[in-house]
Amino acid sequence: MADQPRRSARPKPLSGFPEFTPAGRIIEQQVLASLSNTFELHGFGSIETRAVEPLSELARKGEIEKEVFTVRRLHAEESSSDKLGLHFDLTVPFARYVLENSSVLNFPFRRYQIQKVWRGERPQEGRYREFTQADIDIVGSESLSAHHDVEVAVVMLEALERLHVDFGLPSVTMSVSNRKLAEGFYRGLGVEDHLAVLQRVDKLDKIGAAAVTELLINEVGLSRPAAEKCLQLAGIRTADGAFVDQVLALGVEHPMLTEGLELLAEVVSAASLQVPGRLVADLKIARGLDYYTGTVFETTMDGYESMGSISSGGRYDSLASDGRTAYPGVGLSVGVSRILVPLIGKGMLSASRSVPTCVLVAVDDEETRNDAMATATQLRARGISCEVAPKADKFGKQIRYADRRGIPFVWFSSGEVKDIRTGEQVPANATSWTPPATDLRPSVVRSSVAQ
Amino acid sequence: MADQPRRSARPKPLSGFPEFTPAGRIIEQQVLASLSNTFELHGFGSIETRAVEPLSELARKGEIEKEVFTVRRLHAEESSSDKLGLHFDLTVPFARYVLENSSVLNFPFRRYQIQKVWRGERPQEGRYREFTQADIDIVGSESLSAHHDVEVAVVMLEALERLHVDFGLPSVTMSVSNRKLAEGFYRGLGVEDHLAVLQRVDKLDKIGAAAVTELLINEVGLSRPAAEKCLQLAGIRTADGAFVDQVLALGVEHPMLTEGLELLAEVVSAASLQVPGRLVADLKIARGLDYYTGTVFETTMDGYESMGSISSGGRYDSLASDGRTAYPGVGLSVGVSRILVPLIGKGMLSASRSVPTCVLVAVDDEETRNDAMATATQLRARGISCEVAPKADKFGKQIRYADRRGIPFVWFSSGEVKDIRTGEQVPANATSWTPPATDLRPSVVRSSVAQ
Repeated sequence: MADQPRRSARPKPLSGFPEFTPAGRIIEQQVLASLSNTFELHGFGSIETRAVEPLSELARKGEIEKEVFTVRRLHAEESSSDKLGLHFDLTVPFARYVLENSSVLNFPFRRYQIQKVWRGERPQEGRYREFTQADIDIVGSESLSAHHDVEVAVVMLEALERLHVDFGLPSVTMSVSNRKLAEGFYRGLGVEDHLAVLQRVDKLDKIGAAAVTELLINEVGLSRPAAEKCLQLAGIRTADGAFVDQVLALGVEHPMLTEGLELLAEVVSAASLQVPGRLVADLKIARGLDYYTGTVFETTMDGYESMGSISSGGRYDSLASDGRTAYPGVGLSVGVSRILVPLIGKGMLSASRSVPTCVLVAVDDEETRNDAMATATQLRARGISCEVAPKADKFGKQIRYADRRGIPFVWFSSGEVKDIRTGEQVPANATSWTPPATDLRPSVVRSSVAQ
Repeated sequence: MADQPRRSARPKPLSGFPEFTPAGRIIEQQVLASLSNTFELHGFGSIETRAVEPLSELARKGEIEKEVFTVRRLHAEESSSDKLGLHFDLTVPFARYVLENSSVLNFPFRRYQIQKVWRGERPQEGRYREFTQADIDIVGSESLSAHHDVEVAVVMLEALERLHVDFGLPSVTMSVSNRKLAEGFYRGLGVEDHLAVLQRVDKLDKIGAAAVTELLINEVGLSRPAAEKCLQLAGIRTADGAFVDQVLALGVEHPMLTEGLELLAEVVSAASLQVPGRLVADLKIARGLDYYTGTVFETTMDGYESMGSISSGGRYDSLASDGRTAYPGVGLSVGVSRILVPLIGKGMLSASRSVPTCVLVAVDDEETRNDAMATATQLRARGISCEVAPKADKFGKQIRYADRRGIPFVWFSSGEVKDIRTGEQVPANATSWTPPATDLRPSVVRSSVAQ
């Protein structure tokens, strides 16, 4: 084993498992740090859960079952009872974590969670088998006030707005509705199976209003007027509280509809104060078969609507339950890979350099390498990332080493530092010289080639 | 599905898959941020690789095969040819990443990688089935200078020293040897199968010198004098270059021994300049069957030697090869979970609070919640983490909300802020008030109960 080369041909990427180059990873790191920072400013603490859950828990959410990756020790017996699978979202593991730790957690409990998730679906543009999600949730014990629905929307919009302002990611629009509003409306129309209606309305963007109307009539058994009312409801979209009057004008009445309208109006009004222009009431938002019971959210990037929702979530009356206590929750998830893999792949976002290094300390000859290391130590003591040149090559070659990596400065033993972009070379002291703040760390730049 | 509680009993932890409470996770976050910061100060860039590799690649390292977790889509055909497994270290995926991206990477390429790894071994104290590793490696194309062996040791020691100074983790001692030194010595003794000797010497700590001597005689066929020389070599341990004379005094000669002595002397001498007192030459260090070909490292925490090596690594002449080009590398890995799970579990390390929140903004009544949110926004704009109280309870109850989470300050609409630890309450302005720097973020504290 020991002396044998480990591999013998250039491997090919695995479809559906995107990996970043070092420059791409710098962008991802800065985006994740920005998200974490916003979440922590709002008092959300980080947790991480193990990658695996019992298969029986993962399989509960019926629709997903086919997409689960199972995990097994190579030499385990086939009959082994502790069957495990990789988590396909961060909600199932979070619900389990809440129950497992309920005696040490303080409720309402606010957490964010940034981890990889895995789905065995067919890889395609925007769909991956391994991808990074960032979730925020607030979970209560027995009850959770409605203002937290507003809060998670505001926090996520603020987080996404910072990505827009700081890194040039597209701005976003969050669409919000409420399951109670829709259910109350359908019940007011005399419909028994409101979920059946919701599932058809959820197809609106894909198949169009006419086709959904036919499904509601032929598959769910609605009258044509009732089906048309459902479509009219789904067509309502307003950036302020105007949706309330538009819904009332449809002439349907039900106590649950009234409650849903009030809850949604509250979210829209509070968001317009905190993050103006980024949130709209959009009554076609349904979130399909997911287990939401109140507010539901979807988010698109402006100009990239065809990529679908990049941040979704909502309220669930029972995120988890141990039989005695129910834990209601509300949260939002952002698909980090889903945003970054295409934007970085298309060259819309790039990093100012491919390494953290700000200064390359040149080496005159191998005998003075220790002097170069001492200079680097002085610079690092003040937070300046340094490398010492790997070889005492001619200076031109050492400068090319820096240039190829985008390292902006080269330090010479003569006590001078050169900005290799401008060629300017000035005397400098390693105990006091400081690079411009914009050069200290690599920055994320929005490329002009893309929209 | 929608209205059904997701779970119905308190789940039990999964053996071998440790998870932190929110306070424990704060410690882990700060430790990982500190490691990343040290690595980046030295010009190491972050990469992340996918969790899975082709099983055929993972299985190459024979000894590990039994410990691999295989991964398969739930409904995939058994015969499916693309068999995958979870990576058991970060070296195999890094070698694959280097080959796959060799055309876009600049060599020597310096990367760090902090990710979970999985091993199907029997869970026990200090051995987990899922754990976090932090690796640094420098990899060259065709060649890689010997001074990088010094560099990775210095960087890792500096990183571990910062954990000691900043967070109170135990100090460490790194032991270093060189495979060439050992191999040259054995060859100088006329031994053909130097790996066979190395494997027996590797058992020294476990079974003792007498038993190893017998193995060398009975299993490898050494003469008693030769076996005793091997044990004498393994017994040499010096904090400076004194080991060179001690080895020479054994009277064995071989060109490879001379080369190994020079390489090791260089590492020890450079490390004594950069991180005095933390690195010793220890000639029994062998790293068993691993594929190292030069310098080898092991590291123990002072006072916790029984936990075994918490950071190991070394030089490999061929980290990866595509048949045309060989990529030599040198690196070190630190077992983050292996250090933190026991230290946090035993209460030796704790966090000053369980949430990022520095200030709880109290709410007088639900009608003025928006005012409290505005105050919180002003504080956050200056980087102060805030929560708005979830309920307009009596102030005593709101203060208890903060106290239970360790939130140090409560802000009142009267324009006063209370340090709930001292009870001191002072007038304050949300656009200018700043907490003491030590309170801004949770800090890691070394508890006095443990050693």
